[in-house]
Amino acid sequence: MDQNLPAPEAGVPLVVIGVVRSAHTEPETTPIQAALNRAGRAGHGIIEIAEPYREGLSGLDGFGYAWLLTWLHRPGGREGQAGRPPLRQVPYLLRSQQREMGIFATRGPRRVNPLGLSLIQLVDVTPETVEFAGVDVIDGTPVVDLKPYVTRFDRPPGDPPCGWFDEIDISDGSTPASLGPPSLGPAGPPA
Amino acid sequence: MDQNLPAPEAGVPLVVIGVVRSAHTEPETTPIQAALNRAGRAGHGIIEIAEPYREGLSGLDGFGYAWLLTWLHRPGGREGQAGRPPLRQVPYLLRSQQREMGIFATRGPRRVNPLGLSLIQLVDVTPETVEFAGVDVIDGTPVVDLKPYVTRFDRPPGDPPCGWFDEIDISDGSTPASLGPPSLGPAGPPA
Repeated sequence: MDQNLPAPEAGVPLVVIGVVRSAHTEPETTPIQAALNRAGRAGHGIIEIAEPYREGLSGLDGFGYAWLLTWLHRPGGREGQAGRPPLRQVPYLLRSQQREMGIFATRGPRRVNPLGLSLIQLVDVTPETVEFAGVDVIDGTPVVDLKPYVTRFDRPPGDPPCGWFDEIDISDGSTPASLGPPSLGPAGPPA
Repeated sequence: MDQNLPAPEAGVPLVVIGVVRSAHTEPETTPIQAALNRAGRAGHGIIEIAEPYREGLSGLDGFGYAWLLTWLHRPGGREGQAGRPPLRQVPYLLRSQQREMGIFATRGPRRVNPLGLSLIQLVDVTPETVEFAGVDVIDGTPVVDLKPYVTRFDRPPGDPPCGWFDEIDISDGSTPASLGPPSLGPAGPPA
């Protein structure tokens, strides 16, 4: 390894470029994925971009979708914050089965680095804000990056296998609370 | 804002969970996007997961694709490291036109937070490593997260507008070097 590389485990600082304004205040009652919450004005969120970074929005209004990268500061709710997240967890969508998965095979929020990745539908891009459909994060969630959705880069050909997601039904608007009580074992929530 | 929220601008630490092994050593000759480099064994990369996090891979082998989140430690090459990246840059793919875009409307590596997002095709998942097709990062790139590609969450309906990408031709295997000389202005590279 090059000597200039960060050593594994070294901390890497992130800059918060903005904040999400959403009607959701508790993870348990927030839709688990952006794609499950596109319908209706009530489902819209606003990204407020901090002043120093607003110029970076130039050109984003020509896109239909974008990737919202967030810092999930309250993964799994207040009680979910303490300590290192378990490497195997029962995803929200497998609560009824109480089946565990490795966290890199889930989309849940309790991760080694709690980075959220949401495909948001762009509704309105102003010089300071981004209004979007598909809110799956709570109010106040810090934003660390925005990238345009580019079909050529982001859509795999055909219908690829999607592991355990292929075995379950997923309803629009699913929230952790709608998917059953949290795990009773040492492995807490996620999707 | 809740008092427990990080203030905008506060540093957020990331943990390096692994490293990418790739045949590419210089950003200028590395394909600009994973989707442009899927063909051929030579295009495969390996993610070496650090020992403490390997259990998190459990279940990933059932998926066809995954999102690789990286820390782009050498965005734009050695010379691209110094200072804060400009908020408007000439993307690699617009080098011939020398057109600038806001960084949140590009996929380039010189970002406020240099987080890379690559759609990788999973070739082989072992207990310690992930072999993948679609390498768009250089050897030694730190990995900060892996998430499974879930069609239901990650594929927007129809063919959404993709801004300035809709106006250009994109060739397989495109690299910064193949797309012309870097910008001469204050705004350096990216896609």
